[in-house]
Amino acid sequence: MIGGSVALAARRRAGAHVRGVDPDPAAAAVVDELCDLETALDGAQVAVVAPPLGVLGDVLDAVLAAAPEDCVVTDVGSAKRVAARDDERFVGGHPLAGSERAGVEHAREDLFDGAAWYLTPTPRTSGLLYERAHRFVAALGARPAAIDADLHDRLMATVSHLPHVLANVLVEQAAALGEPAVGPSFRDATRVAGANPALWADILLANRDAIAGQLDAAAARLAEVREALERADRATLERWQAEAAESREALLEAALHSGPTRELRLSVPNRPGVVAELTLGLSRAGINISDMSLTPAPDFTRGEVALWVREADYERALALVQDL
Amino acid sequence: MIGGSVALAARRRAGAHVRGVDPDPAAAAVVDELCDLETALDGAQVAVVAPPLGVLGDVLDAVLAAAPEDCVVTDVGSAKRVAARDDERFVGGHPLAGSERAGVEHAREDLFDGAAWYLTPTPRTSGLLYERAHRFVAALGARPAAIDADLHDRLMATVSHLPHVLANVLVEQAAALGEPAVGPSFRDATRVAGANPALWADILLANRDAIAGQLDAAAARLAEVREALERADRATLERWQAEAAESREALLEAALHSGPTRELRLSVPNRPGVVAELTLGLSRAGINISDMSLTPAPDFTRGEVALWVREADYERALALVQDL
Repeated sequence: MIGGSVALAARRRAGAHVRGVDPDPAAAAVVDELCDLETALDGAQVAVVAPPLGVLGDVLDAVLAAAPEDCVVTDVGSAKRVAARDDERFVGGHPLAGSERAGVEHAREDLFDGAAWYLTPTPRTSGLLYERAHRFVAALGARPAAIDADLHDRLMATVSHLPHVLANVLVEQAAALGEPAVGPSFRDATRVAGANPALWADILLANRDAIAGQLDAAAARLAEVREALERADRATLERWQAEAAESREALLEAALHSGPTRELRLSVPNRPGVVAELTLGLSRAGINISDMSLTPAPDFTRGEVALWVREADYERALALVQDL
Repeated sequence: MIGGSVALAARRRAGAHVRGVDPDPAAAAVVDELCDLETALDGAQVAVVAPPLGVLGDVLDAVLAAAPEDCVVTDVGSAKRVAARDDERFVGGHPLAGSERAGVEHAREDLFDGAAWYLTPTPRTSGLLYERAHRFVAALGARPAAIDADLHDRLMATVSHLPHVLANVLVEQAAALGEPAVGPSFRDATRVAGANPALWADILLANRDAIAGQLDAAAARLAEVREALERADRATLERWQAEAAESREALLEAALHSGPTRELRLSVPNRPGVVAELTLGLSRAGINISDMSLTPAPDFTRGEVALWVREADYERALALVQDL
């Protein structure tokens, strides 16, 4: 579904010629040509790797072995440390879109519209190739955001993997009581329960240390809530409830709101790691780069980088970039 | 919101004349007359009590003190043991509908359409008055279901209160990471986070022992999941995921599916507790009564009860009723 949607969006929105490699012949419906790996990568500018998570590492290695020197290789896996490859052509990727269905028949050109798409450059990643990945993802309709692989995995453990685990727990406990009537709030809270078992077993395992940390934090919080209930501590419960309301609003607000952007232009040495350092430095400070462009100087020793950040973040971004 | 929606549905669907008692003059918009408690209860057949949960007990006592001898008194609180009153006119009630907004301005005639509405008769509850409550609730558009107050509170702790607690925990943990991008699954999973703090502090406290039990069960399950992750036990995780999918489907299926019904007719002694015994006996066996009618014999010593149950439950219901 993800790979097929990338293919459709790349062809129809970015005007790209897309070659696909897939054991499933049905994939022919979404690409310009279905072929073998060598043919597919011949002269390729961008390679997007989207196999089941359990074989992602092996497929990435095969693609990097066969890809041209100036081809950026990225993936769409939902855990980013396990996927990291020490190669200047590699940038990790993860679109936050459509994970519940699998199979190319569910591919949609508009799947990534407005969706966050995390990019995890490594210290080795080439700046020019990172920029190409950033532009490619934006051309598909997504909002690219550079992030550390570590922070990414902790984030996913919190906003995606933990909700899946808790949804399963809710369903189990309800089912243990027979077949009680369940209302819309239970339906919503458990929508992702039992999602694609093979895929999710892979995801949980690929990010298991980060998820374990979040499970511990959740268990500790439940113990605190339990104590507040035992003490009949109304003030604490009411405050907790009010804080949750505020936090949720802030989270959804942040997800919706981008606001006006401003360009930040700078000259950097043309060597691997520079763009990763810049984009990750801003990301760690909570500043997202909504667009970027790189222009190497004629002698390739330096390059000019233009970054677009939110107006509100501009001064902070400028100070950070000057420090770097 | 709940009280106002009862008023609108009772007037427009059940053709009832509705008198309201409310400190908020805006309530006048949804009732035929807004008046004092004595006037409202004069000649009343049904009294529905829908104050904030924190004062529910006091209001119920006041209503029972002023209500006529043949008026059924019910409430809409989401915890049923704390509301129980030892009076033959009392039947506890809880519609599973619209808890996120408060205030009569959110009242809607169709709020209860197809919603489960739990009724918790006590051993003292009059059969005729129980039947009236059952018919009244059905006339509003809801699906009445008799249930033990104990079981009700355990069910609610599981399908409603625990999801609210877990939604808060998810939001807290995500907010602790700054303002991460959140996708639709996080939005759904946390929809109820931070719902109406004053109302929810009351709900959590009113059902605190049952909720504590569910928190313990959830914490135990999280510890098991954590161990499976530590062992990298793929088989267990995949099986767990698959079981959650099945359980959720069964839960939603049960909520949607009623199927054809069949009438079960019997003659019972006309004394308090008979109808409670029947309806709760069937409810404990997982058999729901979709409709019922009671006809007292001319001398009032016995009555005839007609119950409608699902075709598929008929034989079991018959055997159970014969045993009783």
